[in-house]
Amino acid sequence: MPRYGERLAHPAWSAIAEPGDRAAGEVICQMGAPEAFEWLSYWAEHPSGLAPATRRCVDRWAPRLERVNPERSLENFSKIGGHLIIPSDDQWPHGLNDLGESAPTGLWVRGTAQLHGIAVVGSRAATRYGETVAVDLGAGISSRGIPVVSGGAYGIDASAHRGPLTEGVTIAVLAGGADSLYPAGNAELLAQISKEGALVAEMPPGSAPSRHRFLARNRLIAAMTSATIVVEASARSGAISTANHARDLLRPLGAVPGPVTSMASRGCHTLIRDGATCVTTVEEALELAAPIGSVMPSSGPVQPGLLDDLDPFSSRVLDSMPSRAATDVDSLTRVSGLSAREVLQGLGTLKCTGRVSNVGHRWIRVRF
Amino acid sequence: MPRYGERLAHPAWSAIAEPGDRAAGEVICQMGAPEAFEWLSYWAEHPSGLAPATRRCVDRWAPRLERVNPERSLENFSKIGGHLIIPSDDQWPHGLNDLGESAPTGLWVRGTAQLHGIAVVGSRAATRYGETVAVDLGAGISSRGIPVVSGGAYGIDASAHRGPLTEGVTIAVLAGGADSLYPAGNAELLAQISKEGALVAEMPPGSAPSRHRFLARNRLIAAMTSATIVVEASARSGAISTANHARDLLRPLGAVPGPVTSMASRGCHTLIRDGATCVTTVEEALELAAPIGSVMPSSGPVQPGLLDDLDPFSSRVLDSMPSRAATDVDSLTRVSGLSAREVLQGLGTLKCTGRVSNVGHRWIRVRF
Repeated sequence: MPRYGERLAHPAWSAIAEPGDRAAGEVICQMGAPEAFEWLSYWAEHPSGLAPATRRCVDRWAPRLERVNPERSLENFSKIGGHLIIPSDDQWPHGLNDLGESAPTGLWVRGTAQLHGIAVVGSRAATRYGETVAVDLGAGISSRGIPVVSGGAYGIDASAHRGPLTEGVTIAVLAGGADSLYPAGNAELLAQISKEGALVAEMPPGSAPSRHRFLARNRLIAAMTSATIVVEASARSGAISTANHARDLLRPLGAVPGPVTSMASRGCHTLIRDGATCVTTVEEALELAAPIGSVMPSSGPVQPGLLDDLDPFSSRVLDSMPSRAATDVDSLTRVSGLSAREVLQGLGTLKCTGRVSNVGHRWIRVRF
Repeated sequence: MPRYGERLAHPAWSAIAEPGDRAAGEVICQMGAPEAFEWLSYWAEHPSGLAPATRRCVDRWAPRLERVNPERSLENFSKIGGHLIIPSDDQWPHGLNDLGESAPTGLWVRGTAQLHGIAVVGSRAATRYGETVAVDLGAGISSRGIPVVSGGAYGIDASAHRGPLTEGVTIAVLAGGADSLYPAGNAELLAQISKEGALVAEMPPGSAPSRHRFLARNRLIAAMTSATIVVEASARSGAISTANHARDLLRPLGAVPGPVTSMASRGCHTLIRDGATCVTTVEEALELAAPIGSVMPSSGPVQPGLLDDLDPFSSRVLDSMPSRAATDVDSLTRVSGLSAREVLQGLGTLKCTGRVSNVGHRWIRVRF
């Protein structure tokens, strides 16, 4: 077996251990990737000398050794514009280190985007409503210069990626190799992301996107981002696993509510009931991700009403006046339940603000 | 002025003080309603002897004294099947006492329903979605024998009342007198409620439903019930005031989410963000109102998946098998990233559960 330096040992390990293999993470962490690879190469030939627990790991990794060829993988990957980043690189997303031993050993990246942002994820089986919200949220977040991170899948993920494409940055974290634009129906979208944002995978090129890799991939989305927002998710959606990872990592977690009659929002409602923040606007999404106090969300447009800004007496007097006919203080006193003095106080305020007028002792509303 | 006993002094006061008049509540609370009425009758004639703060109150109440006639009010009200209940009556909703000095002095009631339940309220400007949810929630809550309390208004209130009418009990708390079926468009509904549930008002018959009485009425809805649920409410809806009363009274508060694109759900989402419980089903509504642990909500139907109930090895092995072609252990070892022993363990489990079959060393999925 060859001896690899850092830049080859990491991709070699990414081809040997499945995502989230904690034993591999521990070995690499303790020895460093090159030494761990040498260690594995040796013991794969001499397994009988190993303690049973270690042997189980080596038995798992050894069958892949013969096909490992990081030089060729990197060379082929670079032909389609890709490169590998390893934990010691500046571009390495530091959030991944919070994963501890289940952190990836390297990231296969196509694109130049900085690898951080806000995660916007959800079900593949999305409704029109969910897709609309995902596009708007994606566009709004990325327009503030924050990349939108999602999983490149159909439905909510695709919409979350689409929102930023006109003027923002988006990052797709894939379960299989980043050479493959999977799923096929999103190939065009993923190709565009590889040019304007980034495609990211922890498995080397050529890897299939199997189910457990999808689930393992979700931990990267949660760890790479400063907040995770689930837009639409049924009770069993994979997005719930991303949400659980975000929670485990103590990342802020938000969910977008929807109609309670829609099964597609069921998972989001469960998350909210379990403590996720209810997110309804781009501002609320940004507030979730930002350090407390650094964002001041607007409270949204509110229509002023006729009785606004009036003290209680004036408000009750105005409320007690007939809509068209004139009235007097005695009548207002009885109708309003206020004293004559309070009625007069109220009438004074109402006259000053142009809401009533009087002719002698007769008072009448001013129509707007 | 006449001297009234308990059963006449309370209705007299209900015609003199506006809802939520804390000074009236304090006087009645300290002296008892009959003595308080005598006290007022005396000082209305001798106001110059009063301290300024007290005089302001008496000036407010005195103008209505001359028209107070509780005997006639009660007699007329009984002709339309109504009766008055006062705080010492068994039927008095004890929750109202939590309002302290702003508790009503009596309730004018048409109907025989017990005056408690769960409040289901919301905007008059409701959407079809909100109305559907309100009907379902109303029907579901009342079918468990719990009355649904609401405000008798258009929109969500009317729907919340309509849900129970086929087989449950519902109570409408009105802002004006209970003799008047207001608003007119709900007259038929309110008439039915007066027969099968109850109409309730703190103002005496003949009172107009003015704006501040609507707002004051909301405190009764919150106080009479063991939980308040807002189904649909815009940012400025009166239902938000009911919610605030519920919160002030430390009653459980729930809100039903809706599409974030709907302004009609805006108020509900703000309530949820501010700590209200996200309520999406009848069970969750009941759970909110019930003492903790007395209701065990079902988690809802969940479709089992192909990989459910499999241990991680079996699941990964099954996931690594081609969909139709046969494969062998060597290939499965490489594809799955498991050791040969783990693959064999997985295949054993899968064979026992009927998911794979083998011919010698060749393994294949069993199609369902």
